[in-house]
Amino acid sequence: MFQTVTSALDWLGIIAFTVTGALVASRKRMDVVGFVVLGTVTGIGGGTLRDVLLGLPVFWVREPAYLITCALVSVLVFFAAHIPQSRYRYLLWLDAVGLAVFAVTGAEIAAHTGTHFAVALAMGVITATFGGIVRDLLGGESPVILSREIYASAALAGAVVLIVLMAAGAPRELAVGLGFAVGLLMRAAALRYGWSLPRYGPKLTSPS
Amino acid sequence: MFQTVTSALDWLGIIAFTVTGALVASRKRMDVVGFVVLGTVTGIGGGTLRDVLLGLPVFWVREPAYLITCALVSVLVFFAAHIPQSRYRYLLWLDAVGLAVFAVTGAEIAAHTGTHFAVALAMGVITATFGGIVRDLLGGESPVILSREIYASAALAGAVVLIVLMAAGAPRELAVGLGFAVGLLMRAAALRYGWSLPRYGPKLTSPS
Amino acid sequence: MFQTVTSALDWLGIIAFTVTGALVASRKRMDVVGFVVLGTVTGIGGGTLRDVLLGLPVFWVREPAYLITCALVSVLVFFAAHIPQSRYRYLLWLDAVGLAVFAVTGAEIAAHTGTHFAVALAMGVITATFGGIVRDLLGGESPVILSREIYASAALAGAVVLIVLMAAGAPRELAVGLGFAVGLLMRAAALRYGWSLPRYGPKLTSPS
Repeated sequence: MFQTVTSALDWLGIIAFTVTGALVASRKRMDVVGFVVLGTVTGIGGGTLRDVLLGLPVFWVREPAYLITCALVSVLVFFAAHIPQSRYRYLLWLDAVGLAVFAVTGAEIAAHTGTHFAVALAMGVITATFGGIVRDLLGGESPVILSREIYASAALAGAVVLIVLMAAGAPRELAVGLGFAVGLLMRAAALRYGWSLPRYGPKLTSPS
Repeated sequence: MFQTVTSALDWLGIIAFTVTGALVASRKRMDVVGFVVLGTVTGIGGGTLRDVLLGLPVFWVREPAYLITCALVSVLVFFAAHIPQSRYRYLLWLDAVGLAVFAVTGAEIAAHTGTHFAVALAMGVITATFGGIVRDLLGGESPVILSREIYASAALAGAVVLIVLMAAGAPRELAVGLGFAVGLLMRAAALRYGWSLPRYGPKLTSPS
Repeated sequence: MFQTVTSALDWLGIIAFTVTGALVASRKRMDVVGFVVLGTVTGIGGGTLRDVLLGLPVFWVREPAYLITCALVSVLVFFAAHIPQSRYRYLLWLDAVGLAVFAVTGAEIAAHTGTHFAVALAMGVITATFGGIVRDLLGGESPVILSREIYASAALAGAVVLIVLMAAGAPRELAVGLGFAVGLLMRAAALRYGWSLPRYGPKLTSPS
């Protein structure tokens, strides 16, 4: 079972992000194809950019099950009897799960190619955030990555935990699990308690 | 003549999309270099993303005639004596032609790499829509892909027709021609009669 | 010393663009991770797209010093005691330096792969403008590339000078230096004196 931890996590992240894309489509009252496009792009966007940048074959071209799952999940959300009015909260929480998952799996896949740790960290952040960026751009939403609360920082923290534990020789399941937990908890605290890092120039009030 | 059907279609799609990009540049009253940039990005954008995702050499890097044609067509539009006031209608119809062309050629090129049919369908939709997405993002237009009428669905339908007919052993020209016709007719009906698919949640009136 | 001209120029361009990204982050009053994300994406964005399109390994994956430098420069800007209120002017001038640098280095790297001169010119423009496009999209700024003054044209001019001089057999340092100077001067004149090319349809006053 342990060997499939990353794979199971990967599916969790892809499905969580796909649902967030479909929820944006529901906010825009799109048709079913719009759900599939927005859901799928959000679900596979981060991993796609990671693979292109690392020079790897794109994962869903190699393994279409990911693509088909994203499409099916999007269709399911379209036909779900009732999406609650508080869907934006659901979206943010599912987005948090996807963010934490992809931060560790993105960094781990990069590390496996033998790349520098700084590149692995960057790939963690890129994989975790790119799907949501495309979702928000295409859906005309204010990008979550620009929100005042901790976001990319949570992805970076999760990736750092993974890379440090791997470098220290910790078992892979521990590194993946702890990295995921740290990323998710940081983002959850940001959502629940409005945690944020100090921002630039708090005393300035007028934009220049 | 038949062997060049896809190639001739390809040129038609590229030129149609290039003109739509140049028309957006004319709406923004850009200079000639702006026309060339927006026209060329729209003309080659979809095929570029397709090639990158499939791991193929980018078509216009391999064959610069595409790039040069896009630039020349953009310059021609810039110097065209008079662009009609109803240019947005022209833009939408040319966009429909490009959409239908790239849906079938994108899916066909993907199928030739031996990929799964679901990946080929996705490549059809990606090739058909990405140039227009970039055009609308860069030009500050409301993205056509978010329009209420059938859009990505027409691309998907054209790609499905092509893939089904190819799998059934139909002659290539028939598969390409019928796929193109179905995509174009669906999008044309959407433009002419406002055809659309059922949208999510028609009874909800307030966004959440 | 001459052999390192392009390399030194490259660093100059990357640092200049990184600072512009961090300045946009300061306008949005982001936290330090937001500075790093926006600064780094701006600094390496153009070269990344160039490498992906040319089928080369992405430069900062191969050589992480670029990535680490972008991150450090962004952090430095975050902690800089005082960013002047006129930061948008600084941003535009640094952007001009990055634009002129990447137009020549982008075109030169493409030319070294043996590609057609039209592709090399396109790569010059793409490398010069893409980082700023992503910066402005992510930062919610009005894209500099759509500004009324000369912008992409300056990048194109710099790339043309480089390619023509290289084709004429001029020493590499001369071609790089003159291309850089022409691109920078054109953009500087645009910023200083509002230079622009003739725009489409000056007599129309209402958008269609």
